[in-house]
Amino acid sequence: MSVKLYIGNKNYSSWSMRPWLCLKKAGISFEEVIIPLDVAGFKEKILSISSAGTVPILEIDGVAITESLAISEWAAEQNPQILPSDSVVRAQCRAAASLMHAGFSALRTHCPMNVRGRSSKPVHAAALEDAAKVDAFWCSWLEKHATDQKPFLFGDWSMADAFFAPVVSRFQTFNLPRSERAQFYIETMENDVHYQEWAQAGAKEEWCIESADGYLS
Amino acid sequence: MSVKLYIGNKNYSSWSMRPWLCLKKAGISFEEVIIPLDVAGFKEKILSISSAGTVPILEIDGVAITESLAISEWAAEQNPQILPSDSVVRAQCRAAASLMHAGFSALRTHCPMNVRGRSSKPVHAAALEDAAKVDAFWCSWLEKHATDQKPFLFGDWSMADAFFAPVVSRFQTFNLPRSERAQFYIETMENDVHYQEWAQAGAKEEWCIESADGYLS
Ligand SMILES: N[C@@H](CCC(=O)N[C@@H](CS)C(=O)NCC(=O)O)C(=O)O
Ligand SMILES: N[C@@H](CCC(=O)N[C@@H](CS)C(=O)NCC(=O)O)C(=O)O
Repeated sequence: MSVKLYIGNKNYSSWSMRPWLCLKKAGISFEEVIIPLDVAGFKEKILSISSAGTVPILEIDGVAITESLAISEWAAEQNPQILPSDSVVRAQCRAAASLMHAGFSALRTHCPMNVRGRSSKPVHAAALEDAAKVDAFWCSWLEKHATDQKPFLFGDWSMADAFFAPVVSRFQTFNLPRSERAQFYIETMENDVHYQEWAQAGAKEEWCIESADGYLS
Repeated sequence: MSVKLYIGNKNYSSWSMRPWLCLKKAGISFEEVIIPLDVAGFKEKILSISSAGTVPILEIDGVAITESLAISEWAAEQNPQILPSDSVVRAQCRAAASLMHAGFSALRTHCPMNVRGRSSKPVHAAALEDAAKVDAFWCSWLEKHATDQKPFLFGDWSMADAFFAPVVSRFQTFNLPRSERAQFYIETMENDVHYQEWAQAGAKEEWCIESADGYLS
């Protein structure tokens, strides 16, 4: 089976980061192809792979699968360990991923992911409200499931952590206020080997997207 | 196992319709509880069941699961027949559901679901653009998977049809332009027994949400 993942720039593409982490954590070996976003011809390049016109795209033996959630579920079918083993907790974990997939739009709009960026600019009030909601959700899951040995949102690392990884990055880039427990979770994530691998690659990229960097200062 | 689904009004709650259809198609028996939206105290009622504060909510032996996608995946775990049996097609079906879950925001904003409503008002241009995109996606899936015996988006009825069911309803309410193939799909859905069961119940509801009805004329 040939598995290829097309992604956007690691510094900016939050949608790409999530299934990339799921594939890594599931132990699936895959070829990675970066399509720099906002570079002349990038849209045509994406459209030549899938008519949906967005990255990430997973290509399995030449057949394209779009949508970060669908790719992550495919990874979970290959290795169920990236989802909790209890059926109800598994559903709650999926709810967490799905909540992030469609929610917190102010945070996404006003604090776009910028892995290497650091900003001390005041943050839009609606984005701060979203960040406080995210913090409260994190605490509610961590309280129930996290332990010293298993410090992720649902205990062991799971798809939910993949979906919130770009938010962890935003908390750092925009220095968002956070509870003590959220701070602990952010550190847990930043110490994770695959999170680091993505972030370090993003930091080294030479492409800049001015519209995104504009949010920093 | 006790299974309870809390939903919003059937006439208006597009998020509730999707997992309701999945549970029905999966043959799961459940108690249904309607929480009329936009009625005094509705938010407190929802919050007393789940701190996430949104319907639909599935309650399994007293434990709450939110998010329409997560509830639908739970239904698919009970009865895998609501997802395609081929692993790659299954991923594409999930991509379709997930695309709808987070996308087509102009269509969702300007043409809110209103099962019994009929409008002849001109539709916002951005919503028309979204409708044309939906039509194109439907055609691409139907072309590959639908047959006379299996006329749904991925052949047999699947989670993808549940996620697009409220859009089928919007095409009718707002009389949106459509291709011949899309028209055929809309008729297929309207002839489906569970789609009809939901729509007929919505039509009979006495609650009115003025802000939503305002889009009709
Ligand atoms: N819902 C999609 C969203 C993907 C998405 O919006 N990707 C962006 C890059 S991060 C993209 O491809 N943008 C190109 C465009 O929209 O033209 C998913 O979950 O994969
Ligand atoms: N992403 C959620 C969205 C659910 C949602 O927004 N539900 C609406 C009713 S259709 C709701 O509960 N609104 C109440 C509120 O937001 O106060 C899902 O997929 O279930």
